[in-house]
Amino acid sequence: MTELRVIPVEGIPEVREGDDLGALLAAATRLEDDDVVVVAQKAVSKAEGRTVRLDEVEPSARARELAAGTDPRRLEVILREAERIVRARPPLVIAETRHGFVCASAGVDASNASDAGALVLLPLDPDASARRIRSRLLELTGRTAGVVVSDSFGRAWRQGTTDVAIGAAGVETLRDLAGTRDRTGYELHATVIAVADEIAGAAELVMGKTRGIPAAIVRGLEVRGNGAARDVVIPPERDLFR
Amino acid sequence: MTELRVIPVEGIPEVREGDDLGALLAAATRLEDDDVVVVAQKAVSKAEGRTVRLDEVEPSARARELAAGTDPRRLEVILREAERIVRARPPLVIAETRHGFVCASAGVDASNASDAGALVLLPLDPDASARRIRSRLLELTGRTAGVVVSDSFGRAWRQGTTDVAIGAAGVETLRDLAGTRDRTGYELHATVIAVADEIAGAAELVMGKTRGIPAAIVRGLEVRGNGAARDVVIPPERDLFR
Repeated sequence: MTELRVIPVEGIPEVREGDDLGALLAAATRLEDDDVVVVAQKAVSKAEGRTVRLDEVEPSARARELAAGTDPRRLEVILREAERIVRARPPLVIAETRHGFVCASAGVDASNASDAGALVLLPLDPDASARRIRSRLLELTGRTAGVVVSDSFGRAWRQGTTDVAIGAAGVETLRDLAGTRDRTGYELHATVIAVADEIAGAAELVMGKTRGIPAAIVRGLEVRGNGAARDVVIPPERDLFR
Repeated sequence: MTELRVIPVEGIPEVREGDDLGALLAAATRLEDDDVVVVAQKAVSKAEGRTVRLDEVEPSARARELAAGTDPRRLEVILREAERIVRARPPLVIAETRHGFVCASAGVDASNASDAGALVLLPLDPDASARRIRSRLLELTGRTAGVVVSDSFGRAWRQGTTDVAIGAAGVETLRDLAGTRDRTGYELHATVIAVADEIAGAAELVMGKTRGIPAAIVRGLEVRGNGAARDVVIPPERDLFR
């Protein structure tokens, strides 16, 4: 087993709608085969135009209620992005998104928006976003890289966020060890490792929220498989915490 | 921002009760100042003798009920380690431990036990375990390293486990960005990053459950602060998911 390197991608300018993110990443990196490129969701969403201007939002009564004195237009956008409210302690809302992700504010975020009057939404299909970036990187660099689109999610019972994979292409998202044996021969019956989430978390350690680094390369992984981040969502019938 | 390196620690023999884990780690690594040494919980628990032999366990009626046809002695040990059962779908039990961690089987595990008839329990005080290993590393190598004791926890709503910090010393566990500003000047009001959990996850990528590598070094972090993993637990009064 060789070591991993987690390399911040510097020099990416502020991303705007219509930007060719694959080209920006290709220009800013010296990609190698089997690298995994982790890209912050906000950069992907902004390139895809997934932003909403607050002055174009008319808040509903429900949004005013959940806002608890904060800007009700923000809550209105959260309600539109939410398939289901999982918990609410106004103005904090934990919601399930169209993708099945459970996260604060249905993934709607104001920080790192390109201007102060805008909110950034999750990509409509972050796995498709990852596939597009992967294709573009192959086209421009000739390198076969994995791509992970990452976002910072809170967790039940534990404070703080960790970055997880909300989109993936050319990378294993879940590694199923069922049937493999550990050193004492005990069969690992139900051990699945959320590899892509750990990759996203490792990348966050060099990206940071305030340093303006929207991507990192994880080099040295044994990249296998081609999972989707959507597969990481627990199916409702198996979910003990719905 | 420089890159991170995540280096597997190879050559550690199977750990047994009474082993000096700090000395084993010191011998197997070339430590540098500000390295973070991530050690798998199972190695720590075994060195501390936190194992139970199944043939010494008498299962209760409740354990038999929760076992659903599997070994009721295992469920008995889980019940003893649990402060509170959070969810149960026999034989699967999600429980809160004495430390406040919410995890499958109250952290009780059979895989990688030194023999097939034994279960491994969480350390009684994993933050203290981390502090002891850190002191020992300083004593033996002269290097000031951070130490994280890691374990694989499942998550609500997402499949698979990621490694998280259940013990920490000489390392930041939670990084509070409150009051810092992102590139557009938006103040990050409530953004706390669970740095130690991301460090543990990064280390898992090179350790693996089946490769017999119980530790890794994460090098290149700006190590600040000295948090405890116990601080990562959300206080009951703020926990939306109790």
